[in-house]
Amino acid sequence: MLEVAQPGQTLSKEQYESQLPALRAALLDAQSRLRAAGFSVVVLLNGADASGKSETVNALHEWLDARFLVSQSYTEPSEEERAHPANWRYWMWLPPAGRIGVFSGAWYTEPLLERVRGTLSEAELTERCTRINAFERTLADGGTLFVKLWFHIGKKAQRARLKELESRKVTRYRVTKQDWKNHERYGAFAKVSEQLIGQTNTSPAPWHIVDAEDARYRNITAARLLLEALEARLSQRRAPHQAQRLPAIADPATVLDGLDLTLSLDKPASEAAVLQLQSRLNRLTRRLQKHHKSAILVFEGPDAAGKGGAIRRITWALDARSYRLIPISAPTDEERAHHYLWRFWRYLPRQGRLTIFDRSWYGRVLVERVEGFASEADWQRAYQEINEFEHELQQSGVILLKFWLHISADEQLRRFEERRRNPAKRYKITAEDYRNREQANQYEAAAAEMLARCSPPEAPFTLVEANDKRFARVKVLQAVCDRLEDAL
Amino acid sequence: MLEVAQPGQTLSKEQYESQLPALRAALLDAQSRLRAAGFSVVVLLNGADASGKSETVNALHEWLDARFLVSQSYTEPSEEERAHPANWRYWMWLPPAGRIGVFSGAWYTEPLLERVRGTLSEAELTERCTRINAFERTLADGGTLFVKLWFHIGKKAQRARLKELESRKVTRYRVTKQDWKNHERYGAFAKVSEQLIGQTNTSPAPWHIVDAEDARYRNITAARLLLEALEARLSQRRAPHQAQRLPAIADPATVLDGLDLTLSLDKPASEAAVLQLQSRLNRLTRRLQKHHKSAILVFEGPDAAGKGGAIRRITWALDARSYRLIPISAPTDEERAHHYLWRFWRYLPRQGRLTIFDRSWYGRVLVERVEGFASEADWQRAYQEINEFEHELQQSGVILLKFWLHISADEQLRRFEERRRNPAKRYKITAEDYRNREQANQYEAAAAEMLARCSPPEAPFTLVEANDKRFARVKVLQAVCDRLEDAL
Repeated sequence: MLEVAQPGQTLSKEQYESQLPALRAALLDAQSRLRAAGFSVVVLLNGADASGKSETVNALHEWLDARFLVSQSYTEPSEEERAHPANWRYWMWLPPAGRIGVFSGAWYTEPLLERVRGTLSEAELTERCTRINAFERTLADGGTLFVKLWFHIGKKAQRARLKELESRKVTRYRVTKQDWKNHERYGAFAKVSEQLIGQTNTSPAPWHIVDAEDARYRNITAARLLLEALEARLSQRRAPHQAQRLPAIADPATVLDGLDLTLSLDKPASEAAVLQLQSRLNRLTRRLQKHHKSAILVFEGPDAAGKGGAIRRITWALDARSYRLIPISAPTDEERAHHYLWRFWRYLPRQGRLTIFDRSWYGRVLVERVEGFASEADWQRAYQEINEFEHELQQSGVILLKFWLHISADEQLRRFEERRRNPAKRYKITAEDYRNREQANQYEAAAAEMLARCSPPEAPFTLVEANDKRFARVKVLQAVCDRLEDAL
Repeated sequence: MLEVAQPGQTLSKEQYESQLPALRAALLDAQSRLRAAGFSVVVLLNGADASGKSETVNALHEWLDARFLVSQSYTEPSEEERAHPANWRYWMWLPPAGRIGVFSGAWYTEPLLERVRGTLSEAELTERCTRINAFERTLADGGTLFVKLWFHIGKKAQRARLKELESRKVTRYRVTKQDWKNHERYGAFAKVSEQLIGQTNTSPAPWHIVDAEDARYRNITAARLLLEALEARLSQRRAPHQAQRLPAIADPATVLDGLDLTLSLDKPASEAAVLQLQSRLNRLTRRLQKHHKSAILVFEGPDAAGKGGAIRRITWALDARSYRLIPISAPTDEERAHHYLWRFWRYLPRQGRLTIFDRSWYGRVLVERVEGFASEADWQRAYQEINEFEHELQQSGVILLKFWLHISADEQLRRFEERRRNPAKRYKITAEDYRNREQANQYEAAAAEMLARCSPPEAPFTLVEANDKRFARVKVLQAVCDRLEDAL
């Protein structure tokens, strides 16, 4: 891969100065059109030590309108970052629609270093690349334009660059012993870089190798590649995503039809069970803290299925400092300007903590699908995106529990009527809830498909027969306890 | 203070069950009116160990509409929190307008513990209370309704409560050795609590002492106090804030009039100086990192004063990983739903890092004042709020530098015309910029008053004669270097 780059590219000062004004004007024009275009741009700067990533960040800052630019450079993760799933520190800084984010040393640096050091096997490197590809594809499908630049310099040039940096007071600090060690292993770095580039050179997020030995050529080329990508995307009437044809599922509705909604518990039995389970749960969450594990509980189900009541039976057993309850309703404008998964990344628990989502990312394939807020291509794609997201959470050590609380249409109507009569519950019921009932079949079909497509063995949905609230609460508590115990 | 609470209040199960439904209905009704009311509510739960704060959080979660409620309980700060100014961890969770935030163990816990342990002197406790009062007043003036509840239990009751908690499996973990030690020092805690309450019982944020020995009485009373505060505020046509009459300043405009805008530097001299200063700055920011100090640079000045160019001369000298540049333009809706200072708290640097604000919180007393986005009372109040904010930053160890870049009206016009002709700069110029020129006198008066009111000895503005860009850049770099060197 790296050989593809034509070495020895240079720009004289005159060439540079003659090209720059038009390039800057075009960049600014493209950037201003971007602001209304509804997508974001992620520029990734990667490459060898001393290849000038920092200088290019500075040049882009000067040439673009800095008000609509975010830049973020990554070094070792902080304690807070380490306490979250690995990609959290990237998600948090992704630019909203209309803006450009310049990331240097982001998600490619760690696998590169670890593979060279030998702490990552060949197979593990491939697995990391697969996850990176999934991450970038998810963002690209959500509209993000990727401009991935790999700055290449030869070993001799690297040596000269390091020497030069060392020779000047103002840049001496940038050269560490580690840099010289890395320089000695130039060959190993080059080899792993090639593998990394080869395995992550995807059509939604292709690499550009930039010959970085000459600073003027490097900066101008980086800016030109950004401009070309921007202009191509801006001029293109983006074809609406073709809905990915997913393999059909044999009669998915049977999952829900098969639930025995007559299951119930009497009051004394359920009260005793709840108390006993809350005590167990409390001990388990303390172990969670001790083991620095985090847990996420997701609650989905039709309106009035009893999610809130079941959640309260859990939170009553918990120390208020150990959990957060995140009710999901309409997104804010900052959230709308990001990928739909971004708002959930915001609220992921740190190690030792528990987060409960009252409704969740599954809204994408439930309400957004049924109400048409997401296109067919969007929600069809979401099954895989959600599976990958949850897989990533689990890879990072998160204990994930998902519940579907199910009630019959008759029971739902009975609860709606009860809510209308009870002043303390009236706020929960709106005309929209009744309207939604008219689309009950579509909601149920969406739920059945979701349950079928998003129940991998490691992240199954627990189906809860919820016509009887007491039964449902005990079943939920029981499942939470069993699952935490298994995982700890 | 604590004696004020009538001890021995109880509610029988029957009383509780007869009062609760109407209370819940009224709470929900008030909460739903709150959503459109444009202010936020902060409920603070404080009080003795084992007084039931956690249980009350749970009850409020059940009784209110949890979708519009955030709750946050505080323990020891995390590494990330410690790396930021002290109040950062509170600011980040403040509820937006229309929502209720329930905070337990927030900003009163640390001074209480530290004073009892003796690591805080009497005078320091008073100083902390003064800062807490300023913090709460700032939020209250911004619209936040405070409901501060102090849960009181007697020593005997605390002992019984701890014993009871210990006797049950599900709650045993909550009682630590520290709790028993604290219990032995009940008297000392009560004394400091009284001092704390007395010194922070202000009219924008008064305390309510709640007898917390009986759980039913405690929960119902907490909810009732919240309801009363909400209803009082909702029913009240809030009188527009009276603009605080600030002491007049003798001819403030002279500060700017006195600047010698003919100061200039020739190219060779300025280039040599810039290079030398950048080298020095680079070494200084590395020391910043080493000493775990953070720095904030604020740039203000008229349009086209050269803020961007001066900032770039700084960032070129820095490692991209060590700083963030935050350009301030119109706030997002999340930002608008919070106190105007919230958006700046979001971006405060952690230790070892540097943040550059291209325009800042001074917008409140500049553009927002002149354009009428803030009422007179709002911007008049802001001088003090800003001084307190900056004082707090400095108390937390932040090195703060503020620049006012000044140009003459003629020079501004010349630069506007130049921008119009230059395609790479055209984006910087809009019809609005020309319109603003018509209000040049008002902008200059606002700037002069800001400079006069917000230049305490420890956080002065550096005034930069900026008609000559070269002179301005060197002066800025020089000031940054000198100030960092002094502080390190």
